[in-house]
Amino acid sequence: MNTSRTSAASRRITYTPDSLLEVAVAVFNERGYDGTSMEDLARAAGITKSSIYHHVKGKEELLTRGVNRALDALNASLDTLEALPDAGELDRVEQAVFRAVQILVDELPYVTLLLRVRGNTETERAAQARRREIDQRLAGFVERAAAAGALRTDLDPRLASRLVFGMVNSVVEWYRPGPARWSADDVASAVTHLVFDGLRRR
Amino acid sequence: MNTSRTSAASRRITYTPDSLLEVAVAVFNERGYDGTSMEDLARAAGITKSSIYHHVKGKEELLTRGVNRALDALNASLDTLEALPDAGELDRVEQAVFRAVQILVDELPYVTLLLRVRGNTETERAAQARRREIDQRLAGFVERAAAAGALRTDLDPRLASRLVFGMVNSVVEWYRPGPARWSADDVASAVTHLVFDGLRRR
Repeated sequence: MNTSRTSAASRRITYTPDSLLEVAVAVFNERGYDGTSMEDLARAAGITKSSIYHHVKGKEELLTRGVNRALDALNASLDTLEALPDAGELDRVEQAVFRAVQILVDELPYVTLLLRVRGNTETERAAQARRREIDQRLAGFVERAAAAGALRTDLDPRLASRLVFGMVNSVVEWYRPGPARWSADDVASAVTHLVFDGLRRR
Repeated sequence: MNTSRTSAASRRITYTPDSLLEVAVAVFNERGYDGTSMEDLARAAGITKSSIYHHVKGKEELLTRGVNRALDALNASLDTLEALPDAGELDRVEQAVFRAVQILVDELPYVTLLLRVRGNTETERAAQARRREIDQRLAGFVERAAAAGALRTDLDPRLASRLVFGMVNSVVEWYRPGPARWSADDVASAVTHLVFDGLRRR
């Protein structure tokens, strides 16, 4: 109790939009967005509800900003890859997968929030719609690589795409930051090697 | 309203342990196990709470029976594979992956329930513990294949195992039964090919 009060007191004057967002996203991931009230957020942040309203209009705004952090990073990486003039189509997919895993690990709470959003409110449905756009951009990369003849032909590119990004997204289920056994790059390399070259020894 | 009353009335005398379980698992997956009351289950089944208590002691029993249906199928498949005397270690992993996807699709609601269980009660923690046993058996298969020299050596087998079964489990997020674009075998083949031989054209 004392510890949490001390930390609340020391935090009280130091919230920035980003540090408040960090607290809110942790609570959303713990309790579920639907199950989180402004009371819960105020309690976790150690400030009053009206102090939170000083920063944001409501929990919808925190959800939007939280998922946008993940979505913006993913979209920026896809923009960069699309702008590479002479990358091969397969290269582009490999880099998209590698970069998606890195972003997932680097922005773990925000990507977790994005992947867990249900569609119960307008704000949540908007987040889901933006997530689907990313999925479609990624699927488009895979289809272009297939059209360029770079992928094996016995796998439906739409199905392959779902499975590959299913593997990528599954990392949120078990990856934990800290002195981890595997770094972001270890996981990103493992996913990329596995997906493009398979597990079998050659 | 009328439709649901008619269907409730026609169902009232026909519940078997399995058909009641089916209704309960659908409600758990829709509302979350934690958020489901016996009231909710009675309403969805169109019978009274006391009729449900005639079948089961409480929602814990329905959770246990629901997750056991998934766990028993998975364990039975691993038992069968372990008993194959002259299967190569790589074959065994490939068949374990293929069979896991088939079970996931065939028993979709039960596997979904298993994968979504949080650890808030003793019953849920018991389900999670049984799930971890399966994960460890599967990881053991992968490690034996690695020890037999059947897997590429630049991937940590523990990490590979998490990623492969992450891909398998991700299928619950999007696969829907019915006149699907892909059958259980299509998905099982695609996962197995992708994981063992990769996406790259050779």
